[in-house]
Amino acid sequence: MPAEIWVNNRVRSTPFTDRVEAAGVQAYSVYNHMLIPLSFRGLVDDYRHLKQHVQLWDVSVQRQVEVRGPDAAWLVQYMTPRDISAATVGRCLYTPLVDAAGGVVNDPVVLKLAEDRFWISVGDSDVVLWADGLATGLGLDVEVFEPDVSPLAVQGPKSEDLVARVFGEGVRDVKFFRFAEFDFQGRSLRVARTGWSKQGGFEIYLDDSSLGGALWDALWDAGEDLDVGAGCPNLIERIEGGLLSYGGDMSRANNPFECGFDAFIHLDRQIEFLARPALEAIAEEGPERRIMGLRIEADDLPFCPRGWPVVADGVRVGEVSSVAMSPDLGCGVAMGMMERSHWDAGTIVLVETPDSAHTASVCTVPFV
Amino acid sequence: MPAEIWVNNRVRSTPFTDRVEAAGVQAYSVYNHMLIPLSFRGLVDDYRHLKQHVQLWDVSVQRQVEVRGPDAAWLVQYMTPRDISAATVGRCLYTPLVDAAGGVVNDPVVLKLAEDRFWISVGDSDVVLWADGLATGLGLDVEVFEPDVSPLAVQGPKSEDLVARVFGEGVRDVKFFRFAEFDFQGRSLRVARTGWSKQGGFEIYLDDSSLGGALWDALWDAGEDLDVGAGCPNLIERIEGGLLSYGGDMSRANNPFECGFDAFIHLDRQIEFLARPALEAIAEEGPERRIMGLRIEADDLPFCPRGWPVVADGVRVGEVSSVAMSPDLGCGVAMGMMERSHWDAGTIVLVETPDSAHTASVCTVPFV
Repeated sequence: MPAEIWVNNRVRSTPFTDRVEAAGVQAYSVYNHMLIPLSFRGLVDDYRHLKQHVQLWDVSVQRQVEVRGPDAAWLVQYMTPRDISAATVGRCLYTPLVDAAGGVVNDPVVLKLAEDRFWISVGDSDVVLWADGLATGLGLDVEVFEPDVSPLAVQGPKSEDLVARVFGEGVRDVKFFRFAEFDFQGRSLRVARTGWSKQGGFEIYLDDSSLGGALWDALWDAGEDLDVGAGCPNLIERIEGGLLSYGGDMSRANNPFECGFDAFIHLDRQIEFLARPALEAIAEEGPERRIMGLRIEADDLPFCPRGWPVVADGVRVGEVSSVAMSPDLGCGVAMGMMERSHWDAGTIVLVETPDSAHTASVCTVPFV
Repeated sequence: MPAEIWVNNRVRSTPFTDRVEAAGVQAYSVYNHMLIPLSFRGLVDDYRHLKQHVQLWDVSVQRQVEVRGPDAAWLVQYMTPRDISAATVGRCLYTPLVDAAGGVVNDPVVLKLAEDRFWISVGDSDVVLWADGLATGLGLDVEVFEPDVSPLAVQGPKSEDLVARVFGEGVRDVKFFRFAEFDFQGRSLRVARTGWSKQGGFEIYLDDSSLGGALWDALWDAGEDLDVGAGCPNLIERIEGGLLSYGGDMSRANNPFECGFDAFIHLDRQIEFLARPALEAIAEEGPERRIMGLRIEADDLPFCPRGWPVVADGVRVGEVSSVAMSPDLGCGVAMGMMERSHWDAGTIVLVETPDSAHTASVCTVPFV
């Protein structure tokens, strides 16, 4: 795209924006009304660096929706078909939120802070309005609001070493999809072993914007010999890892079966959730389409801002939603919604780019 | 800002994006998960052209939230303190939406399509999630969804002539903030005399994306001798006109009195709305701050992406949220939230930019 983005104060900066700009950000997008960096060295160089070293990611756009009060646990459960009733404090739970019609409202990670207090770390939609609308309409005894919390992700194979240098050796004991509290300059911060890459790492939930520069600098200064760099969610790496982008790969037009969320749909459990009738009806017939991976035979592929058709025997059988060339796999990697007739792994199809058509084979994700 | 925006299919294109790019868009932002053009010839040249000629604006980002069904009128009224009970079909109503705590959720224009059917033409937040959450929680008999509707604005002093050439002379009879249906290539489209400028004009509610190119081209081809051009909401002109930007000038942190929406707060009417208790409490004390205009003495001002402090006698008394140099007024024009002590028109204050400080006087809006 040739056009620049202009930032005004409708599009919010983050506690880390100064540092991101000093580090040479090349491209932004806007996500939850806020800036998100998309590139520092270019997609491919960012990808190689992420897989070898350690990166700081300004993912403040993962806004938190805090749900707190006597009915908090009931409301969070009501919004998702995943049974979270037995989750303990300190857990991070990938939790698709689903509306009454069975549409996916968001696919956040939920942090259980206390029995009556949760942070919903959201993808790109105003979950705070939906949760507050439900709570208001149902007359629940709960507060729903967006606190001053901005996650900073530390991702890459050297991330544990880096985070341990700043937060202490205790972070090595934090298990996957758990968080614990650690001291930073006299303030206790929640540090989770999570992140939107498959290279390992942590997300630090900074709940005091005034410390943004200090937190970034502490990690940066401690990581010089680890080749620490500024980074961001990487299109190539996240497709290889099968990580879905809400609003890109799926939306409210999709049900959670189509998104492959079967493991998080607990129709057989004794829990109360809004989408139950809709999902029971869909489960009976089974979904018509499903997000799958696609390995595309190509030496080069254009940028894909609007989806590409997938065809077989001249008939449209799916649509690519995310695609990139994978340097490590030597082919195009894509994700897209495939019709039932053509969703089996190994099925050969044709992906139509604006300029040409490429043979592709359907596959499961992650690719690697 | 030096950084580019990259577009992926999380950020939606519009039915007019091809034409916008062919017309030489220079900058975008993202608004309601969708592209919005911000400049074609540069801010000042766009401003001059808008005030003299006629422009086509891709404002598809003004997404519609359709509310339809037996409880539709009740729900729309419940979301706003403005009494819309007597509104007739064909009206467009500027309608602040306010939550239970008195926070402004959005400031849309509501179109009354039928007694039981409304389009809420929203600013930058997911009102569809708010309205659907409320409807679900309250158990209302209503459908809430985002239809395939993309407004195209025609703005500028020659807009009536241009729209009449394409839609017929009947559009001249459409009154301010009313809409009517007109034929376009065999399809009936709603055309409203509205738009986010003070130069006069229309908004065409295209409800068939496949006609985007045809609609743009028809207006473009008919307007050659009127010097029709591509345009977009213009920062300078909309500040001069006192038009607020949701998320920029105000947010859920503000109540509607602070936003100057007093004319739309009908506490004395016998209507039922969610924010009544909160607004009655605020009305008793009166607001602490209020959005006002500021005329700034300056020959040049930098770009203001994050707000500037307004001070008097060394004390912070307000914050500028939107600012630009006005070529026609020969000064800086700004809007910002001013504390009660300093909100009277004529008050002299100091606006602190990152590099300097400028004398400014508080004023009412619009400026012109």
